[in-house]
Amino acid sequence: MKFVSDQANQFVQLIEKRQDEICSSIASIDEASFSIDLWDRPGGGGGNTRILTSETFEKAGVNSSQVFGQLKQEELPMFRQLIQKVEPDFEVSIRSEFFATGISLVIHPKNPFVPTVHANYRYFEVTNDHQSVWWMGGGADLTPYYLFDDDVTHFHSVHYNHCETFLKGSYDSFKSKCDEYFYLPHRQETRGVGGIFFDYLTDDYDRQFQLISSLSAGFVEAYIPIVTKRKGHSYDDSHRTWQAIRRGRYAEFNLLYDRGTLFGLKTNGRIESILMSMPPGAAWAYNHVPTPGSEEEKLLSVLRSPKHWIKK
Amino acid sequence: MKFVSDQANQFVQLIEKRQDEICSSIASIDEASFSIDLWDRPGGGGGNTRILTSETFEKAGVNSSQVFGQLKQEELPMFRQLIQKVEPDFEVSIRSEFFATGISLVIHPKNPFVPTVHANYRYFEVTNDHQSVWWMGGGADLTPYYLFDDDVTHFHSVHYNHCETFLKGSYDSFKSKCDEYFYLPHRQETRGVGGIFFDYLTDDYDRQFQLISSLSAGFVEAYIPIVTKRKGHSYDDSHRTWQAIRRGRYAEFNLLYDRGTLFGLKTNGRIESILMSMPPGAAWAYNHVPTPGSEEEKLLSVLRSPKHWIKK
Repeated sequence: MKFVSDQANQFVQLIEKRQDEICSSIASIDEASFSIDLWDRPGGGGGNTRILTSETFEKAGVNSSQVFGQLKQEELPMFRQLIQKVEPDFEVSIRSEFFATGISLVIHPKNPFVPTVHANYRYFEVTNDHQSVWWMGGGADLTPYYLFDDDVTHFHSVHYNHCETFLKGSYDSFKSKCDEYFYLPHRQETRGVGGIFFDYLTDDYDRQFQLISSLSAGFVEAYIPIVTKRKGHSYDDSHRTWQAIRRGRYAEFNLLYDRGTLFGLKTNGRIESILMSMPPGAAWAYNHVPTPGSEEEKLLSVLRSPKHWIKK
Repeated sequence: MKFVSDQANQFVQLIEKRQDEICSSIASIDEASFSIDLWDRPGGGGGNTRILTSETFEKAGVNSSQVFGQLKQEELPMFRQLIQKVEPDFEVSIRSEFFATGISLVIHPKNPFVPTVHANYRYFEVTNDHQSVWWMGGGADLTPYYLFDDDVTHFHSVHYNHCETFLKGSYDSFKSKCDEYFYLPHRQETRGVGGIFFDYLTDDYDRQFQLISSLSAGFVEAYIPIVTKRKGHSYDDSHRTWQAIRRGRYAEFNLLYDRGTLFGLKTNGRIESILMSMPPGAAWAYNHVPTPGSEEEKLLSVLRSPKHWIKK
């Protein structure tokens, strides 16, 4: 392991702790266990990809990684673009070194009445001989196939509480950013019912660390009660078909727009860990239009016009 | 309909004739029929999307279109890049008009022993007050789930014969271009076993027209005998699972790399006709590796190292 700053080191400890906690919580639902895939990155660092398939979860993936190395010539424009957002004067060259760590998870349940969820919390650091720059990003969002307002409000409320405790006024901005980010322009739909999304936070390490520590601990509280409540809901083939079609949109978002996925593919990241987020199954039906007044149409109307989920 | 050049008009007639012939041939296999979706393009022109689902074909789509209009400011860089390849001095501005016509088809059979096929033949024209430029492109390629050397050789031979009759020496170059184009760098695999691919042909309208007329007529001869031969092959869930995983790669190629798909999405094309090419179903399994010595592994080894299919 390379020498890392105290800040980076503290974030790594958090990530690893959260990965353990979240995996335990998911695995306990069916008393199943994750298989663990430890991998090295040729340029430096590596990760820990954990995958579970159980009665409730068709595919659950929780990945943590710590990667580092010198910037390559062909990566400079991309890193310049990133660093521009936090420190426009920072000198980016092939003598710069980067360090990135994060946790990333996507849970695809089998029952179409249980929503898919995604969360990611990350820390970046780039150093020169004489300068260094760092930032944090992250978020969590929910992708239901059928809408239960209570579930969505619960998910948003948990995130609201954690945001407001550590960064007053942040929820509204993070909620809007999430709706903007998880958007498929060619479908004129959001991917799901949102949550929170933020990037390039670089003001105050301690406060942001506490925020992310709190949010990532809150993941279990935000999601698991929904799973417990809905996993016994009866369903038939028509519900699975709708789930497969919506999972097609999930695949479209990840391959066409997701910055993390495209960044990973461009920088020769570990393919299986990047595409771990892809749905276990997906379908594309020509010109599928839900029946007017159906539950499927009710979901679509919310994806086309995002709602406020919290009454303040 | 806008006034179009004789060249464009002749190509449109060919496209419409071929769409009828190909659809008849596919529909006749199960005595099924295509549903027809006529659509208008807001900026000018429209198309005819035909879709069939039958016992043999899980999803067959054959689309023809004729679209035209003045170039938009935001489209100029993209058109400049295209036109650069055929006429570097051509002046591209918002006073330029384009005309594009083509046939595009993707056939996804149900039986995993019948290959998926894609073909596309197209004509582009851009005019200014005082200049005009045109080019043709196209190709056809086969994506099997299980490898039968005879089928692949047959598909390539038919295309070889049509290529060599009208453009001596073209097959080798078109075959290589196909292997290069239908390549997933992140997987280090080709999408399928290739066929032919060419673009920006602009030397001799009559000869190229004859070539494309012949190739597009040859589609039925190249593909239908394979369907007839393999559609009764017995299969089980394990074959369907492998097919679904390979269809996941098909989806990855189309959304990450296919120029036609990305061009369509960027120019506000008709989404359902663009994404008609997507597989009816697809799956993503974490780190799926075929058993050594299996038929699945045999296919992969050819996708990782494209073969010559024709003995000359």
